Amino acid sequence: MSLLVVGSVAFDAVETPFGKRDRMLGGSASHFSIAASFFTDVRVVGVVGGDFGKSESEVFDRHNVDTTDLEIIPEGKTFRWSGRYEYDLNVAHTLETQLNVFAGFQPKLSDGSKKTRLAFLGNIQPDLQRGVREQLPNAELVALDTMNLWIETTRDSLQKTIEVVDLVIINDAEARQVADEPNLIKAARKILSWGPKTLIVKRGEYGAAMFTKDAYFAIPAYPLEAVFDPTGAGDTFAGGLMGYLASQDKLDEAALRRAMIFGSVMASFNVEEFGTERVQRLTHEEINQRFRDFKRFTHFEEIPFQKAERAV
Amino acid sequence: MSLLVVGSVAFDAVETPFGKRDRMLGGSASHFSIAASFFTDVRVVGVVGGDFGKSESEVFDRHNVDTTDLEIIPEGKTFRWSGRYEYDLNVAHTLETQLNVFAGFQPKLSDGSKKTRLAFLGNIQPDLQRGVREQLPNAELVALDTMNLWIETTRDSLQKTIEVVDLVIINDAEARQVADEPNLIKAARKILSWGPKTLIVKRGEYGAAMFTKDAYFAIPAYPLEAVFDPTGAGDTFAGGLMGYLASQDKLDEAALRRAMIFGSVMASFNVEEFGTERVQRLTHEEINQRFRDFKRFTHFEEIPFQKAERAV
Repeated sequence: MSLLVVGSVAFDAVETPFGKRDRMLGGSASHFSIAASFFTDVRVVGVVGGDFGKSESEVFDRHNVDTTDLEIIPEGKTFRWSGRYEYDLNVAHTLETQLNVFAGFQPKLSDGSKKTRLAFLGNIQPDLQRGVREQLPNAELVALDTMNLWIETTRDSLQKTIEVVDLVIINDAEARQVADEPNLIKAARKILSWGPKTLIVKRGEYGAAMFTKDAYFAIPAYPLEAVFDPTGAGDTFAGGLMGYLASQDKLDEAALRRAMIFGSVMASFNVEEFGTERVQRLTHEEINQRFRDFKRFTHFEEIPFQKAERAV
Repeated sequence: MSLLVVGSVAFDAVETPFGKRDRMLGGSASHFSIAASFFTDVRVVGVVGGDFGKSESEVFDRHNVDTTDLEIIPEGKTFRWSGRYEYDLNVAHTLETQLNVFAGFQPKLSDGSKKTRLAFLGNIQPDLQRGVREQLPNAELVALDTMNLWIETTRDSLQKTIEVVDLVIINDAEARQVADEPNLIKAARKILSWGPKTLIVKRGEYGAAMFTKDAYFAIPAYPLEAVFDPTGAGDTFAGGLMGYLASQDKLDEAALRRAMIFGSVMASFNVEEFGTERVQRLTHEEINQRFRDFKRFTHFEEIPFQKAERAV
């Protein structure tokens, strides 16, 4: 196994000013694994109900996502989330959350999964994340995501979990909140002091930043004229990032930097259509093209500053 | 003349959670010209009162800022602004604005000033900006800044002024507001359609972005653990940017990209202490160092994406 993801597989209902969908494949593990599948082998650990149908399974199959560890509870119902975005898509409203079978989710790893080289602990209760982490003693790199709910309700457990992962991938507000520090640079230093070697901060339309003990790296977002549905952008970013890393022999800082570009590329496609629809149709050529765009968007000449000669 | 700036010269009183100053040199033309002076010759067009003293003049003199066109009205008082920042320095409160002699400001350009190669029209009433623009028919590049007040009260005049400049340097919210378009990429396209060849958008702690008809360029901000006083950061950014441009023979896109880095470098120093205090003490070596830091913060390898071989 190259890459394991533990997280939610859900049915999402989404309304935006541009349209709506009543039931589409969603959840952190879905967005993550489909994005990662363009770069590497990926396996999903999750749980669904009897209503999880053939058309959803086929999406995973088509992307060679391994669902061996996707537990099916035939008498239960799959996690459902419904949300609405305003014209300013940064303003989101959760209309309904039905946890269903996800409420009792206990990640179960098959022997094959325990041998994974990389793992991503999607946004679930931090005790569960730590339980999975402990079953992966030989993983080369384990990353986690979290959310404000766990920062507010299970702070101690979350910190313990952060202490035992290699990479934290969270958004700007979460980084400040978990560190209890409004300045992001200080917040990053504090989070790294707990144990992780690397912190990657997602900043939505402003891009992303990476912090290690010795280095800082930051990129803008891909410029988009039309954002259609931001649902799953963060997990798609993580999927592109971890998927690319899994394809690399050396997980050094240079690989992490490139991985952030690939994560941003995948997230930029994700928000162009509903759910995973755009990412499902992607080609490697389209991915490559946006990677090259990023190089153009960020390049400047390294010229030593010379004070101009004073004009007469 | 290399570079002309038209704008306010003021006394600022600033309170932050970290300290306060009752009266220090401020205003857009002050911040701009001191920053620009590290790169080129710069002349200020502005107005002050009889209370403008020797210690303030000396700051300009020390930086070789030409004050030939800084009008002194002995019986009047200099523009005063007082503001307070909260612990989150993005939250600013204006406590008092006394326009004084600035209320009747009519920019007067000496013959030497009319021959300037570059000019920056700081944030003043757009009719006045346009009046200055018309006196510089041979300038190679004229830039402007503005603010929400002018967008709200003098929109038509502002648009006419934007139509006759080469470069617009405004912040994120102003760009969206002036274009009446919440998506920044669309807003940029609209502003460029009015005439300017280039739009540079300041995004505070998120960096800056440049738009031309054919290109996009974006950079993060310099990461700072402690921001002390953000007053004048935007004008210092513009000063570093325009000052560097004035030092260059070719004002092409490559020069504009490097100029944005120098603008960001100067702004990063500006916010580290009150008013212009930190920038006044700068050395070229310190400026160079942060330019090189930017290269490190933004570099990634241009590697063609290869899908990993599937593991067995």
